[in-house]
Amino acid sequence: MSRLKLPESQYFGRIKRMQELAKKEGLDAVIIASDEAEPANVRYFTNYTPVFETTAILIPAESEPMLLIGPETVALIKPYSKLQNFRKLLEFRESSDPEYPDIKHDTFEQVFSEINGGKKPQRIGLIGTNVMTVQVYEGIVAAAKGAELVKSDDLLRKMRMLKSDEELAMMRRAAQIAQRGFERALEKIKPGMTEIEAAAECAYGVLMEGAEAPGFLIWCVSGNNTNQAIGKSSHKVIEKNELVQVTMGAMYEGYVASFGRPFCFGKPSDKAMTLLNLGLEANRMTHSLIRPGACASDIANAVHGFVRERGFGEYIVYGPGHGTGMMECEYPFIESISDYELQPRMTFAVDTFLGGADFGMRYEDAAAVTETGEEQLSRAQQEIILL
Amino acid sequence: MSRLKLPESQYFGRIKRMQELAKKEGLDAVIIASDEAEPANVRYFTNYTPVFETTAILIPAESEPMLLIGPETVALIKPYSKLQNFRKLLEFRESSDPEYPDIKHDTFEQVFSEINGGKKPQRIGLIGTNVMTVQVYEGIVAAAKGAELVKSDDLLRKMRMLKSDEELAMMRRAAQIAQRGFERALEKIKPGMTEIEAAAECAYGVLMEGAEAPGFLIWCVSGNNTNQAIGKSSHKVIEKNELVQVTMGAMYEGYVASFGRPFCFGKPSDKAMTLLNLGLEANRMTHSLIRPGACASDIANAVHGFVRERGFGEYIVYGPGHGTGMMECEYPFIESISDYELQPRMTFAVDTFLGGADFGMRYEDAAAVTETGEEQLSRAQQEIILL
Repeated sequence: MSRLKLPESQYFGRIKRMQELAKKEGLDAVIIASDEAEPANVRYFTNYTPVFETTAILIPAESEPMLLIGPETVALIKPYSKLQNFRKLLEFRESSDPEYPDIKHDTFEQVFSEINGGKKPQRIGLIGTNVMTVQVYEGIVAAAKGAELVKSDDLLRKMRMLKSDEELAMMRRAAQIAQRGFERALEKIKPGMTEIEAAAECAYGVLMEGAEAPGFLIWCVSGNNTNQAIGKSSHKVIEKNELVQVTMGAMYEGYVASFGRPFCFGKPSDKAMTLLNLGLEANRMTHSLIRPGACASDIANAVHGFVRERGFGEYIVYGPGHGTGMMECEYPFIESISDYELQPRMTFAVDTFLGGADFGMRYEDAAAVTETGEEQLSRAQQEIILL
Repeated sequence: MSRLKLPESQYFGRIKRMQELAKKEGLDAVIIASDEAEPANVRYFTNYTPVFETTAILIPAESEPMLLIGPETVALIKPYSKLQNFRKLLEFRESSDPEYPDIKHDTFEQVFSEINGGKKPQRIGLIGTNVMTVQVYEGIVAAAKGAELVKSDDLLRKMRMLKSDEELAMMRRAAQIAQRGFERALEKIKPGMTEIEAAAECAYGVLMEGAEAPGFLIWCVSGNNTNQAIGKSSHKVIEKNELVQVTMGAMYEGYVASFGRPFCFGKPSDKAMTLLNLGLEANRMTHSLIRPGACASDIANAVHGFVRERGFGEYIVYGPGHGTGMMECEYPFIESISDYELQPRMTFAVDTFLGGADFGMRYEDAAAVTETGEEQLSRAQQEIILL
């Protein structure tokens, strides 16, 4: 299948849109941070993904944007970044603080003096402070010389929340690869393998099916470990008759789709079987409630009410879905306090996770809100999987 | 081969040692931060690795340490953390800022009130601010109510720099797995595969050989892309007669060994061949200079002098080696300004990277300083690899 690419115009259109939003908010510039674990913010505007080093994009209200990077990723700009205008700042170096005595660096002070025709910024928006390091923040504070710093995450969240046709196409492809990777791995995973080996089959599967990356650290957990909402595969050997859980993803052109399935080699305990059936019902209920105009908190309350009624209220950790797109989990959320209406072009991970002291399970698929209802982006083996 | 484990006593010994150092420095507590991309700081004391969420360990001078985590990784504490005393703080949630309306959280204020018998901390050491998010930092600043915050990375760097016998055993195992993973992958990698598929073979290889994780995002790059000091595999197809570079690693019980080799299917250009030969010589020179008592800057100057003399000075990006252990790259560095003497129990990645506008190459292996010289932890195919 031929590879899809996001048109370059979308990246520059996003920069332009952010400039307009900044001006509207009275910001002289916004600084948007990313790191290796969460590259989405900067990738959204540039297609650049930081590796080891952190990064930021500086978007002035009235002049050209700049990509801010560390000293060792210069060679990644040319092949990846749509924005070729970059500066090297020591604040973005990798976390071991290498010294680079032989490399000349730029500074925040210098960078600020270059923007908006040399006019000193008075108000600077910061986006992604939840991934920005203290080093970078302190560099900004020192160079801003008293300029007001305003947390402005909402500007970007709202932009990223509604997907273009091209973005939806990337997400469809990502979801397709994730489910194919799972089906490929499921032919290899056997009792007697370790969780780590099983997860390796999943990661290998999505990469061979065309993913750019797994999108996050894929995990396979088993037995008691299935109670991990966020999991980490261990050297534990997968046994017969216990629950096994794969939570995996695939990244395609920067877009991630998650895919989660519980399964069992043999026959799970009665209680585990009850949980699986309940989880599958809750999952189907969530899918059925996703449509334009639905209030997110109503969905959360309906699904959680159903789970509580069946006596598994203590297995609830979070809401039945969350936004997805360039990050496996992104704004907005579907929680009991989520006071907004679903709109066409929003994309969600329908993420039915239930976990207690004994075990847990997750069914997860990406879905898009359409003009009339829901489009499920993956649906392979949305059932009780007994092998 | 049976799995090695670091004795639990080492983790608690490290906490005790940090308490002693804190007291000596007049600190009432230290807060040590980690995230998914750089988990080493916290893992060193606890064996806990954060996933998605960030984390910190709070070590008070006079009372029990606490692990600070986000809401979703609670179930990872029991199977992994040697330190079971934890608190959930919203500041450590994942970067999409989920809301968790149904979960009760602790706060920094409350946590500070519980330590040192309720005595308000006056001086708090911060370690790992280069991976600490602004959110966490602001939470600490607000709750510290004017207490002095002191950057104290040096305390931990010096502890981690010298490895115990058990740590050296982990590093040997990691290096062995990395080179076996490479050899296994090299049987699969062929011209016509994409860089991403080739890197997938490497990651799969180390996981099947017993690694806990690849340790960092393994990359395979080819042609012009080999000039990436920090690389990212692309969908580019690997061709005959061009340079191909694998930079990979293996993590074993939290210890990482890097392994890098350039190779070529066919015959590289004359200039590429000259670079390979030069790189291999520079690599051997670096290994030969590693011994106790050697001054790190002398090593850097000797190797860089040799590279410059051969006319490839512009291909130098950084020094010929860097510390390694729980992070692929950690303190101390071997640079022209590195004014310290190598000591037994230091471990280095001998990392010969040379990259220009046209292409680049890296030979990399982990090595330990012994009482009398150097122990190379991997040495497979330390040669010109033409396939």
